[in-house]
Amino acid sequence: MAKTAGFCFGVKRALDMAFDIAKKDACTCTLGPIIHNPQVIKKLEDAGIAPVEDIDALKDRKVSSVIIRTHGVTIEQIEELENSEITVIDATCPFVKKAQNYAKLLKEEGYKVVILGNKEHPEVKGLMSYAGDDVMVVDSPGEFKKVRGKVGIVVQTTQQVETLKELISSAVENCKDLKIYNTICNSTALRLKETTEIAGTVDVIIIVGGKNSANTTQLASLCNELEVASYHIETADELETQWFEGAETVFITAGASTPEWIIDEVKERIEGIGGETR
Amino acid sequence: MAKTAGFCFGVKRALDMAFDIAKKDACTCTLGPIIHNPQVIKKLEDAGIAPVEDIDALKDRKVSSVIIRTHGVTIEQIEELENSEITVIDATCPFVKKAQNYAKLLKEEGYKVVILGNKEHPEVKGLMSYAGDDVMVVDSPGEFKKVRGKVGIVVQTTQQVETLKELISSAVENCKDLKIYNTICNSTALRLKETTEIAGTVDVIIIVGGKNSANTTQLASLCNELEVASYHIETADELETQWFEGAETVFITAGASTPEWIIDEVKERIEGIGGETR
Repeated sequence: MAKTAGFCFGVKRALDMAFDIAKKDACTCTLGPIIHNPQVIKKLEDAGIAPVEDIDALKDRKVSSVIIRTHGVTIEQIEELENSEITVIDATCPFVKKAQNYAKLLKEEGYKVVILGNKEHPEVKGLMSYAGDDVMVVDSPGEFKKVRGKVGIVVQTTQQVETLKELISSAVENCKDLKIYNTICNSTALRLKETTEIAGTVDVIIIVGGKNSANTTQLASLCNELEVASYHIETADELETQWFEGAETVFITAGASTPEWIIDEVKERIEGIGGETR
Repeated sequence: MAKTAGFCFGVKRALDMAFDIAKKDACTCTLGPIIHNPQVIKKLEDAGIAPVEDIDALKDRKVSSVIIRTHGVTIEQIEELENSEITVIDATCPFVKKAQNYAKLLKEEGYKVVILGNKEHPEVKGLMSYAGDDVMVVDSPGEFKKVRGKVGIVVQTTQQVETLKELISSAVENCKDLKIYNTICNSTALRLKETTEIAGTVDVIIIVGGKNSANTTQLASLCNELEVASYHIETADELETQWFEGAETVFITAGASTPEWIIDEVKERIEGIGGETR
């Protein structure tokens, strides 16, 4: 069992806030899914808090308050909400918040802001809105186009530091003034590190977490690079007996948004296939 | 013949200034050798401008003006001179000046300043004086000690960009706020690049320039890494016939402080050994 599996600080904080509100206020929603784990979202919906897609949908539902997801939203959305009757409960992960502030600071200091991250991810969409019109988003260092002058880099919190190093090496060739905020969160870094260190000593790795979760898919793609048999599942139901044929050691890890009850179920199901847990 | 061999902008500018003053003012000195080429220093001495070691020596000689060397001097030395009767003629290379200003700026912005360079080199000694008491000088990335918090990097103008990349990769692991001024001068970068590109296609490389010249020794150490037969000489007199036995192609390059007349002499001497120049 990975020591680093499961809820990180930001996810735990956001869910505590959400379930707390669920007890008090029947008339609230989250703007987008609060975290990227469909099973947790389902539980929250059962407790009365549904995710809605945009602010118009909030208005249609006449909610009194809205919870901002861990990944944050755009500055324009925050401003629109602040000008409305709806109360904002900000569950943005404090580390994402930090990255947003750095993006804003870089823009104000006249840097061209480069974000290392996936431009389709809500965290990056939020970051972009703070970085100014001139922002460049690169998903991989190869996408970086030569820029001279002042370049400031911020990073989606779930990226790998090795990718950041490659991007910087590319940028420093031409940029005489380069400012980097390494906003990769420690929780992500430690999870990736633990998996890297253990990969060579196990036969199979099971990665548990949302298929839409950036940090979980980072874990899964790391395992692919490490060339160890690995499977990314959301729940125990996806496990297949043949994955474990001839395997002596299985490593179970999970993303920052994967709840303990799902990890436990996976562990028990694998034990049932015939094993013991260390 | 290397296209990039010989005087760079900063050296040419400084020598123009010095020989110009030599015509007008018999009572001037340089604070340390103006560039790192003993043969040029000798020429300048013959024209009446000698290098002196420190400000006391200037005062002993009762000079009316002093020329600041291309590598720059410390902020304390500049201040002492400004408070004296001696007129300062600043031949500091504008690119070194820029690095000094960046070191000062980083210190003022609360960064711990890290200088990539050789702490015994006068350019780095000058830079250090602008960077504050907390400065760290690393000659190679391996010397970098983990620092958390705000780290600002400036670079001795004659370093290799690959070394800078290694240093940054090491620093970004722990520093959340990293600011880099890539103060490696283009002239150095292009000279190293040309040599790297040509190394595989020639039998022997001759590097011409002061043994005390940082950019020339960088060239020489690059050639060592590239595993091509290479020899670092100051003048044609050091050439040895046996270096060229069986060699079909010889590449001649030179540092930023090597005068054309020395390069020409080397070329002619090698032609005399039996060859033709392309």
